[in-house]
Amino acid sequence: MPRNVHLSDDGLSLTAQLSDTQSYRFHAIWLRDNALDAETRSPGNGQRLITLADIPADIHITAASWAGDQLKVTFAPEGKSVTFPANWLAAHAYDSPDARLAPGWTGPAITPWDSSNGTVTRAPLATLQSDAEALCTWLGAVENHGFALSTDGPTTSGALRDVVALFGYIRETNYGPLFEVRTEVNPTNLAFTGLGLQGHTDNPYRDPVPSLQLLYCLENSATGGESILIDGFRVAQKLHEEDPHGFDLLSHYCARFEYVGSDGVCLRSRVPMIELSPDGELRAIRFNNRSAAAITDVPFDHMQAYYAAYRRFGELVDDPANAVSYKMAPGECVVFDNMRLLHARTGYSGAGSRWLQGCYSDRDGLLSTLAALRAPKAEAAE
Amino acid sequence: MPRNVHLSDDGLSLTAQLSDTQSYRFHAIWLRDNALDAETRSPGNGQRLITLADIPADIHITAASWAGDQLKVTFAPEGKSVTFPANWLAAHAYDSPDARLAPGWTGPAITPWDSSNGTVTRAPLATLQSDAEALCTWLGAVENHGFALSTDGPTTSGALRDVVALFGYIRETNYGPLFEVRTEVNPTNLAFTGLGLQGHTDNPYRDPVPSLQLLYCLENSATGGESILIDGFRVAQKLHEEDPHGFDLLSHYCARFEYVGSDGVCLRSRVPMIELSPDGELRAIRFNNRSAAAITDVPFDHMQAYYAAYRRFGELVDDPANAVSYKMAPGECVVFDNMRLLHARTGYSGAGSRWLQGCYSDRDGLLSTLAALRAPKAEAAE
Repeated sequence: MPRNVHLSDDGLSLTAQLSDTQSYRFHAIWLRDNALDAETRSPGNGQRLITLADIPADIHITAASWAGDQLKVTFAPEGKSVTFPANWLAAHAYDSPDARLAPGWTGPAITPWDSSNGTVTRAPLATLQSDAEALCTWLGAVENHGFALSTDGPTTSGALRDVVALFGYIRETNYGPLFEVRTEVNPTNLAFTGLGLQGHTDNPYRDPVPSLQLLYCLENSATGGESILIDGFRVAQKLHEEDPHGFDLLSHYCARFEYVGSDGVCLRSRVPMIELSPDGELRAIRFNNRSAAAITDVPFDHMQAYYAAYRRFGELVDDPANAVSYKMAPGECVVFDNMRLLHARTGYSGAGSRWLQGCYSDRDGLLSTLAALRAPKAEAAE
Repeated sequence: MPRNVHLSDDGLSLTAQLSDTQSYRFHAIWLRDNALDAETRSPGNGQRLITLADIPADIHITAASWAGDQLKVTFAPEGKSVTFPANWLAAHAYDSPDARLAPGWTGPAITPWDSSNGTVTRAPLATLQSDAEALCTWLGAVENHGFALSTDGPTTSGALRDVVALFGYIRETNYGPLFEVRTEVNPTNLAFTGLGLQGHTDNPYRDPVPSLQLLYCLENSATGGESILIDGFRVAQKLHEEDPHGFDLLSHYCARFEYVGSDGVCLRSRVPMIELSPDGELRAIRFNNRSAAAITDVPFDHMQAYYAAYRRFGELVDDPANAVSYKMAPGECVVFDNMRLLHARTGYSGAGSRWLQGCYSDRDGLLSTLAALRAPKAEAAE
């Protein structure tokens, strides 16, 4: 179809018709910086070869025209011409009103859940190791729901390394590359006793916080010890629905977390319980009664209301209506997003035994593996 | 000295005189949540044993009195009494006006620098391994200035593991536990070629971003290849001094970064170039022309000004007045804060050779080691 294009602001921007219904404005500097030619972007790896300093500050467009689906743009004072495919421009358009979403929004890749729509995704470890499509689906569940379980793995110490190897790398900490979760006589951390634990995120005293956690079940014959997961993003959204001011307090002020549990370890952080991107996207939840230090960054006049919101957040975390639960069988491993999900467990007794091995990892490797698995499909669909 | 204390708001708060000049208000719920008794906090590891749900919502103070330096507080409806040392209350007081600092502030542990006050801290690796006080000073330089160098280490491949072992752990990524920085014939990443590189932070496309980077020099006989560091926090503050609106644009809108450089790797992030805590503290700088993807989260009406601020930020990064430079000798290793410092290098030629090994790590381990080294001194001083 024939498309229109016209210049504005003495060539500082143009308006390009991308389809029957889409016309978008683009700036000269934005187009030049994002030029797709081989002098601007390395054909091999896509890295930009120039800096902004290589682009004249008085850059402007002198001509723009369509040749089929390609928009040809000529810049002065460089005298350089480059072309942009219409679908690339449509995918990267930024000419929308500055209609910020309400704080606490999540992107299309994420489905916040509670007990009404929470589902447990399971797949055998051997299938995930051999079937790329199954792995893609399973990693997609971690992205979308925040967790998934592998099943039918070996019940040998260290087997969770096989699960991490599906998508990324262990983040080693002072707890070691792997840590043991079982009853100990003289525990240095409450997670290693038989008590129940309130829903919490791990290691909020660590900055950057580990963004993924894995827990691999090696033995589970003890009574109780049910595993519980809560979607902290959904809980935060429910708090926002009930009490937007309380949500704002938990996101606008920093809490403090601390762990000084063993020799040579003294971890402290100053971070909000609800962390948002600057434009209000939910980014991370940090909630852990055990390692919460005294909150000193909330002014006196807001502290009573802050605590009311903190209390309400905890009530929502404790509410079974916001949880999914399951009992882990030996050979099963749960992978969950520690910046989004809270995990809890019911108490377990000394009868029988419960032995989990855990480790931390990071989302970047998982999401990269997922995106790479999806990429060939996207190309095939074009 | 005799101290005053009195209740307010029907016992919802109290005002305690902590010294001749200090009187602060504290809330009942805050005091109860932060009680220091053995039923509230584990004497062994300091972890809190209760949740907010264990504290009645109608908590209030029925009595408060001083006994020497100890403030005794009695709560209803629990009927529980706990004591707080005056110096603990003074250290955790939050009764200050809500006078937010201008965005871009840094805490007392950090000294932003430019070429006028930037200093290179060096210490021999063997000294750091054997002398806790020297290690404490050196790690303190990383905290305060964002970087330090170890010297006189072995020139054998993998030696940088000895440097990481001083304070923490390697963060493994798709680049491996360690990566090589040397001229390669068919590079997949511009960092591995002989070109000069603009000041940048590493891996902004990774979320969470590696918060520390180490570069260990094994050979450096090539011409050029000077190492340059720039304090991104100081650069951001200079931008704020010149152009507060530009600073706000770079901190209030997300940029995008992407690296799709080799098989199975597809890393993307949506993060601001200047990341702030919700109360405006500088938290991270992300700046990398090579991996910057098209910016699509800035509305059209702000894009021209956003690019002007982005350009000015880059000019400040390129300005030698904001840099320190040094040439690395074999056996030297630089450790730097990748959320704060930008690193650059001048181009180097094929004559001779330059071989660095690098790895990523995280600040939590380093700051924990530093805090633990400092802790005994603090106790001795009390």
